[in-house]
Amino acid sequence: MKVAGEMYESIWLDQNDNTLVGIIDQRRLPFEFKTINLGSVEDIYNAISGMALRGAPLIGAAGAFGMYLACLEMTKKTLYRDHINNAAKFLASARPTAVNLEWAINIQLEKLNGIQSRDEMINISRETALAITRGEVENCKQIGEAGLPLIEEISKKKNGKAVNILTHCNAGWLACVDYGTATAPIYLAYDKGIDIHVWVDETRPRNQGSRLTAFELGQHGVPHTIVSDNAGGLLMQKGMVDIVIVGCDRASANGDVANKIGTYLKALAAKDAGIPFYSALPTSTIDRSIKNGMKEIVIEERDEREVTHIEGWLDNEIVEVGLCPKDTTASNYAFDITPSRLISGLITEKGIVDASIEGINSLFNK
Amino acid sequence: MKVAGEMYESIWLDQNDNTLVGIIDQRRLPFEFKTINLGSVEDIYNAISGMALRGAPLIGAAGAFGMYLACLEMTKKTLYRDHINNAAKFLASARPTAVNLEWAINIQLEKLNGIQSRDEMINISRETALAITRGEVENCKQIGEAGLPLIEEISKKKNGKAVNILTHCNAGWLACVDYGTATAPIYLAYDKGIDIHVWVDETRPRNQGSRLTAFELGQHGVPHTIVSDNAGGLLMQKGMVDIVIVGCDRASANGDVANKIGTYLKALAAKDAGIPFYSALPTSTIDRSIKNGMKEIVIEERDEREVTHIEGWLDNEIVEVGLCPKDTTASNYAFDITPSRLISGLITEKGIVDASIEGINSLFNK
Repeated sequence: MKVAGEMYESIWLDQNDNTLVGIIDQRRLPFEFKTINLGSVEDIYNAISGMALRGAPLIGAAGAFGMYLACLEMTKKTLYRDHINNAAKFLASARPTAVNLEWAINIQLEKLNGIQSRDEMINISRETALAITRGEVENCKQIGEAGLPLIEEISKKKNGKAVNILTHCNAGWLACVDYGTATAPIYLAYDKGIDIHVWVDETRPRNQGSRLTAFELGQHGVPHTIVSDNAGGLLMQKGMVDIVIVGCDRASANGDVANKIGTYLKALAAKDAGIPFYSALPTSTIDRSIKNGMKEIVIEERDEREVTHIEGWLDNEIVEVGLCPKDTTASNYAFDITPSRLISGLITEKGIVDASIEGINSLFNK
Repeated sequence: MKVAGEMYESIWLDQNDNTLVGIIDQRRLPFEFKTINLGSVEDIYNAISGMALRGAPLIGAAGAFGMYLACLEMTKKTLYRDHINNAAKFLASARPTAVNLEWAINIQLEKLNGIQSRDEMINISRETALAITRGEVENCKQIGEAGLPLIEEISKKKNGKAVNILTHCNAGWLACVDYGTATAPIYLAYDKGIDIHVWVDETRPRNQGSRLTAFELGQHGVPHTIVSDNAGGLLMQKGMVDIVIVGCDRASANGDVANKIGTYLKALAAKDAGIPFYSALPTSTIDRSIKNGMKEIVIEERDEREVTHIEGWLDNEIVEVGLCPKDTTASNYAFDITPSRLISGLITEKGIVDASIEGINSLFNK
């Protein structure tokens, strides 16, 4: 999508020097737009662990490129196998809970299995990294195409008046190489000339909404307004929201959706106001081993400092300020679970299905 | 309630010099605890308009003390009436939408009507200001006594295990001279030795929860934990909340409650989880001229800067930092409306009643 008028993806191979991997330093967003070149396995590790990049699909792509750089770094033929295996372990440890990271690294290990020539390994790992990256983009684009008719239909019903879409957190292209998940139907609708407006939940405590989603939408030109997380209920009461589209961290076999903390509250409000509520996700995010999301998904707790403090922009610097009395305790659950009964449907790369056992089974029987 | 071990109210007449009115500078809280002496009508005006003090009951009390200081400032007997009327207009303009401010000033004007002697006017206005202040304290204490049995009952059911209470915004003693409204049952339960724990919503955009409620509870010794506004739904899903108690900005004749933005979302979550949800308020907050709160109450919109920026503590200073891309538009509705169907009851100084036409009528027939 666009940044300052130019098309970007959130990770790329440098066009002039294909031993360099380019990324956007997301820690500086939205205050500064800065790209970084990563030229070593260690660079990739630091970028992932230091959260210069984030978002499951992007982390996976970065891990895949990390394995390509590992191949470039091989020196002594007898140690190729050790070198690759060590790099895989090292990269996977950058964010141990990121399923996509391990998944992408394992694909590389499989592709490289049995290959002896350094050049061939380099070529294979580069092509694999690029293929994984293209695959993520393609998935997101298909999610967008699946979700687009929802927006088109509302637009028709409103005789072309702006369709108001509410979203929570950042399930955008910055997290996903391109298009995003929740944002994919939004970008496609906008690019098609449909009049839309997005309500962006700021998404405390980490403010991915006001920092990343607002940045993305603004740079691409999509009309949007930031609101505090508290506001969505009122907006829906007042008829100012036509559809809610959020991302998904993990979905269970019965269609429950774990997503950024606060998603459930918006789903309740949408239900109460009769507004459609959709979660957009690649089918790879569905964990069919979890039969009942409400009962089985364990909620990650993060550092309380994210609640007691906040990062902001002051005198051209990013600073962290305190928000409450010193020594106050805070609790910081990272996500909540929206039960399937509140979800109108799941928007996937294979189409829209019911948030139900039947709906989810249909995705895997296709 | 206690601050650093000493009992405080949020406004008082100086014990040594009763021409001075003391307040806590709430703009500095929770980072610094600083009291200010107000010795003139202008001081009172500035404190109210500059938000050194806030909260409807406290603003009313401050207005009443302002009228007392106006009497002290009278010099030329032939101009007493003009002086008092001008002071009343000036003070009322400090926050034109604060109903309590006008109400308290009008009580003073009525009491002073027809009085000629300067000394008598000073005495009457001082006693009236003190009576208004004591009245606010008494109301809040009675709200506490009405709500206390709710907490006691839960405590018994849990065999004395901590009762978890969730609250939103600051409906505490800082806003109300003493006790507060939503916090009154909490303080009474705590002072009675009941094991309680309070979940404090930080309450974006102005963070009255993490700034004021957390300060109040912490200073008085009440166990509490700050959470982002997004977290309450999950806490309720997980059975970590036993009761929700919030304040009220305005209630309608049918029991709908306008309160700080985000209240409605917590009411939805409480309903979904089968958790009791109460609003605590003096009956003076009920506006019976409004038949249907959902349809008739107009929602105040505030400066978008409260959403795009935030105040915090950095290097022993209060600073305001930016939170989103420059020039991003934000929307900032100050409150939402919780429909009566989601409210278990209204805790008033006259007891607990249903949030319904019948319940509210019963308060005024008593």
